[in-house]
Formats: sequence, structure tokens, C-alpha cells
Amino acid sequence: MPRRAAFIAVGSELLHSDRVDTNSLVAARVLRRCGVVLSEKRVVEDNEAAIATAVTELAGRCEIVITSGGLGPTADDTTREAVAAAFDLSLARNPHVLDLIAARYRDRGREMPAIAAKMADVIAGATVLANPVGQAPGQLVPVGGTEIALLPGVPREFAAILELSLLPRWAGSAAVVVRELHLAGVWESEVERRIGHLYERFGRERVTILGGRAQVSLVLTADGPNAAGSIAEMDQAFSDLAGADLFGRDDDTLAGVVLAALRVRNWRLALAESCTGGLIAAALAAVPGASEVFQGGVVAYSNQVKTATLGVAADVIATHGAVSQPTAEAMARGALGLGADCAIAVTGIAGPGGATLDKPVGTVHIVVATPAGMHHRRHQFPGDRTAIREIAVTFALDALRRLLAGW
Amino acid sequence: MPRRAAFIAVGSELLHSDRVDTNSLVAARVLRRCGVVLSEKRVVEDNEAAIATAVTELAGRCEIVITSGGLGPTADDTTREAVAAAFDLSLARNPHVLDLIAARYRDRGREMPAIAAKMADVIAGATVLANPVGQAPGQLVPVGGTEIALLPGVPREFAAILELSLLPRWAGSAAVVVRELHLAGVWESEVERRIGHLYERFGRERVTILGGRAQVSLVLTADGPNAAGSIAEMDQAFSDLAGADLFGRDDDTLAGVVLAALRVRNWRLALAESCTGGLIAAALAAVPGASEVFQGGVVAYSNQVKTATLGVAADVIATHGAVSQPTAEAMARGALGLGADCAIAVTGIAGPGGATLDKPVGTVHIVVATPAGMHHRRHQFPGDRTAIREIAVTFALDALRRLLAGW
Repeated sequence: MPRRAAFIAVGSELLHSDRVDTNSLVAARVLRRCGVVLSEKRVVEDNEAAIATAVTELAGRCEIVITSGGLGPTADDTTREAVAAAFDLSLARNPHVLDLIAARYRDRGREMPAIAAKMADVIAGATVLANPVGQAPGQLVPVGGTEIALLPGVPREFAAILELSLLPRWAGSAAVVVRELHLAGVWESEVERRIGHLYERFGRERVTILGGRAQVSLVLTADGPNAAGSIAEMDQAFSDLAGADLFGRDDDTLAGVVLAALRVRNWRLALAESCTGGLIAAALAAVPGASEVFQGGVVAYSNQVKTATLGVAADVIATHGAVSQPTAEAMARGALGLGADCAIAVTGIAGPGGATLDKPVGTVHIVVATPAGMHHRRHQFPGDRTAIREIAVTFALDALRRLLAGW
Repeated sequence: MPRRAAFIAVGSELLHSDRVDTNSLVAARVLRRCGVVLSEKRVVEDNEAAIATAVTELAGRCEIVITSGGLGPTADDTTREAVAAAFDLSLARNPHVLDLIAARYRDRGREMPAIAAKMADVIAGATVLANPVGQAPGQLVPVGGTEIALLPGVPREFAAILELSLLPRWAGSAAVVVRELHLAGVWESEVERRIGHLYERFGRERVTILGGRAQVSLVLTADGPNAAGSIAEMDQAFSDLAGADLFGRDDDTLAGVVLAALRVRNWRLALAESCTGGLIAAALAAVPGASEVFQGGVVAYSNQVKTATLGVAADVIATHGAVSQPTAEAMARGALGLGADCAIAVTGIAGPGGATLDKPVGTVHIVVATPAGMHHRRHQFPGDRTAIREIAVTFALDALRRLLAGW
């Protein structure tokens, strides 16, 4: 069984509507490298009772508890007092730590304010953790089978103490490997059905499924001495079931994968977007170096733009409507004319207005034009305007990806 | 004593090193409007025991507990089961809820998968909270003096149920009034300097400043019997200092404000985007009804597209470069030619590549063309590729907004 850890961010300001704690992300990364599972994280108010309650509850169920914040010199910095009280330990001023703190002030040409002395209060039995980039040292307090690490909340101080003092201590010989598989053009429930039987084989707790907007990610975890072998075996088994829906692993993005596949073929891409209104272009342009492959495109919201810049014949729109296969194909041909080897065209009804009886909200036509011809598909997407537009982006890029993969 | 609330995000993926829960920020804002103090938040793994432990601990010390996530159809969605088990309540399939879920699938032309039925399991004594934008309804479970609200983790579903069903319930007579003022084309430190002296007048705790990507919001709060009067007074004082930088209040967005100002004048807008690569178009197209005003535009990444669709003369690009005032002006003229009354053109270097000695990363030319002529500004934006592109979107839309305001 891997060791389990919990994280507590101390600070009332982290309970407002405009701040998120990010020290826990650093802790999660360091703990993963140590083979420790981060099983819970919390934000609590900076008062002694709240902190004491949190460390007591968590020490009862984790081998490691990390606190962030509340080690400064002011009256609302009470993490030391709270942890000491929670486990009935004494707190005493440590003269060596006090000397170090005073020396840091002297080195900076400042006199140590009287209130700063409390940063030298050390919990009985604690190991002092040197702070290479700030005043308040950390403390590591053993309580039963649990180690409680008190760290400052300032992000670079938090990270420095964690990486310099605690990572080497906790890493030991453990190794946890994480692999993410990314699928596009599918729904979570569908993937769940397809892979469900693998949960039993590999263990339910080793697979997390993340779904959203026609993309699904499978997060696979393995640990122990054969972690690398296990993750390879899991990757193989899940990839086989993902099949052509699998577009990448770990840091891959759909736009990045499509651009890379085009770059290999030395193909240039252009777009003709109506209902997605620039979102596909924005997704591609977000990838550094996109301009080598991505030529640009037209956001053809009005029929006049469709006609003027893409050469869509007015009578095609008049006969079939702006949201139709013939219009989408004409848009794709127009985009090809912008100096591209392949093109994606999207036209649809994202709502809330614009629907007709035979073209409800969510109707989207996607055409991919390649040297081999036109590939068209009519979709009916669920959700509101935002969802429909984002799902259309995924399906549009994914349609090109699948064509390139089968090339 | 104000009521106290706690928040629990359910999801193992939120304990990784790359994700933060943001639903708690929405919860914090809604709770503040209800006069409820958010006193603790947590992230727990998606397993039944972890969720049950968290709700049990928190129900003992808060009047309100909100959970986010774990209400979907898959095997690791266990929040309903966990809360039922924690308080020894039964869980039964509700046929009316099942009908609603099945109808949603039918409306979208999809068959309801068998596993989806578990979203209709309702805890004994719970009030079902309609989900207007997704499948899984929320549930409000009374346990002793505590209300436990089970909400879906999908952010828009979480926010919708919270605001539609729970805000009115919890707000009661606690008259907390919140007003947000939104500024664009400014930086947080600048605004802080300008408004700082008002903190003393109105109280530091009643003003929150939120900055990011060239937009700043001031969140003003008032309570007590004269809350409405206080908020009007604060609005007046802060608006005076915001001056022309103020673009809207509360739910206003910059794109929405620009489109509304154009609609009043019956003006149509077109775009020519290079480094922003479709982001401005996407921001405008995200606004329902945008197509009445927004004609579309060209994402002119390659010079060939600039020339072919916008009529930018090749020798303008050759002489001055793609990132220059003459090219930006030619792009704007080309966009006007798409049947628009006004146009925005943006060309710049978002990096990481493409910089030259006299055109460092962050150089962005923005041109707004109106019937009164061309308005050009060269900017030097800070940050990485993503930041530069997003800041450019704000400044581009804001340049048009300021011209329209001064019309």
C-alpha cells in the first residue's frame, strides 16, 4: 500500500472568491515523486481551533500531513500553536533558531522586530527545516505514525523547503508512474462502458476517467518495483480498447497532434468557420510554431463574408441554407483556395436562436477537404451555445486527425 | 453570528499536480451574497468512504455543506451513495427524475445508456434541485441543523443550480449587496494606486480587486439595512476614479458591451486577426445574437491569406513587415471591405519565436477603422504567448469601445 498524505492550506484569504491555493500543486508533484498518494487537501481559516481540528482529523488517517502558511510573525500566524495544542506538545523558543533569524535580519541591514522572535518557537520533538529563501523555518513533527510538516505559505519558501529537505527524506525507493491517455470524438459514458471490465483486471483505484466536451482522458497509475512494466501493460490494454479514438498521451493536445501530423506531410491547413466563430483558429494558434502549418482562415459569420472571401455561391446558400452540406463544402473549397493543402469548414446552429424545425439547435455540418476529396458529416450536438461550439471544435479537429491517421 | 458553510470538491483528478478546483470560487461568491461565511474547503478522492468522512466531519460544524462532483453515471460517481451512507439514509430511484433524464437524452437524439439511470437515485428526505444545463440533478439533504447540497462538478452545471435554486433559498433576508465594476485596458497595480485612498473611507474588507490580462474588476460589498444606499455610494465613488476605463458592471463582458454599442448605432463589425488567431472572433461569437452585428473576419496567419482575402499589398508587407502599422491599416481596410462599418485589425509577435531587434516578443499593432478614419496604436505587452494574445484581445476590443463611447 502506498503511503497517504494530506495537505492543509492555512489562510482565510484563500477562502475568498478570487484566490486558489497553488502550493498543493507543488506538494502533489513532490509527493508523487516519492510514491506518496495525496488523498485529501483542505483550506482552513487562520485560527488556532480550525487548524488544530484539521491536523487532528488528518493525522488519524495519513502518514504525512503538510501544512502551508501561518508561520509568520503576526498575530494571525498560529499554525505552530495550533499543532502543539492539538497533540498536547509544548512549544519553546529555540535560541539557535532565534540567532539564525536575527542574523538574516542583520544581513539585510534591518533590525529584527520583537514580534519576529515567535518564528523561533519550536514544537517539542520537532526537526527544524531550514528555510533557504525566507525567515520562518519549517518544522517536522512526529505524532504517532504520522509526520506533520509545517511549511511557510510563501510559494517559493514552501517549494524550497519541500524539495530540499522533505523530498529526499520521503522519496526512499518508491516510484509511482502516471500515464494519461487522451481520446477525442467520444463521450465519457461510452468510454466507461468500453473499458469497464479492465477496472477489475488492474484495480479500480488505478484508473481515473475524466470527460468533457467530446474529449475523454484516462489517468493510469502504477507503483511498486515494477511500476514501469505495469504502466506499459495498462497503456497497451487501454489503448487497444480506445482504438482510433486515442489521439495522444500526457501533454499532447488535439490541436498540437493535428499540427504535428500536418507538419510531417508538409501540408498547410486553412479554415472556414461559421458557428465556431474563430475557436478552431484560436486552438491552433495557441500552439507555438503553428504558423508553419496553419495559414489562417475565414470566420464567415455573415453570408456576405461567406460569398466575398470564400466564394460560396449565393444561390447555394439560398437553395440549401447557410447550415447545410453544400454550403459547408463550398466553404471548405474556398478555404483551400487560401493556399492550403487541406481545409476544415464548420457551419451550424449554436443557439439559442436560429433553429428551424429540421435544423434544431446543435445541428452542425463539418467538412474536411483533403487532396483525396471532401469528407462530410452532419452532427447533432447536446448542450448550450458554449458546449455546442466547443464540442464542434473537438469534432472538427478530430475529423482531420482521423483522416490523416488513415492516410 | 453569520451562518457557516463548507465546500467539498469530489474528484481524485483534483488532487493531481495540474488541476485546481474552481467551483469553490463560485460557491464563495454566492455564499457571500447570502451573508454566509465559507469557513473551510476540501478536495477528496472519489471514493465513498472519503466522501462520507468529509460530509460527516463538516456537517458537525457548519450549517451548510456543498459538495461538487460525483453525481455522474459512472462507477466512480459515488457522492449520492456516500452521503446516504454517512447519515444512514436510504437511496431510491425516483421515477419522475428518471423520466426527466430519459427525456433529455431523447431530445438530443440519443438513447439513454443503462448506467445513466443511477443519476435518478434520490436520498430519502432530499429536495431534488433541477439541473437546467445538464443531466444529473442536484439534491439538498437536511441532516440535523445542516443542509447538505449535492451538486454536479461540471462548472456550468454547478453554477447554474447554485444560482438558480440555492442562492434564493439561502439569501433569505440577509441583505448583502454585491456590485462589480469592470475596467479594461488597465493593470491592477495602477488601479490599486488610483483607488487606494477609498479603502479607508469604505473599509478595506468591503472592496476586493481582481486583476488579470489587462482587465480589472472591483468587487464592492455592502450589508445591513442600508445596503442598497451604501452600494450606490461606493459605486459612485469608484466609478468616478475608474473614469473611461470602466466598461461595465456585474455580468457585463467587454465583447458584449462592444456588440451592444454597435447594435445601437446599427453598425456591422469585421475583423482581421493575425497574432490573436481567432480569439477576438471567438470572444464576440460567444455572445448570443452576435451575428446581427458581427459579420466575421479573417484569421490572416500567413502573408498569402493577408494578400488574398484582405487585399494587403505584397509590397506593404515586404517594405514594412507583417508586424507594422501600414500592414495593420491595410488589414483593417480589407476587413471593412467584408461589408462592415467598422473593423479591428491586430498583428503582432506573440512569441516564443518571430522576434527581431526592433520588434521584440509582445510587440502588437492594433488598428480600429471607423467611418472617421484609422486609429492606430503600437503596444508592448508583457508575458508569455498566451498572456500576450489575451491582453491583445482586451486592448483591441477596448480600443473600439473607447472610440464608440467618444462618438
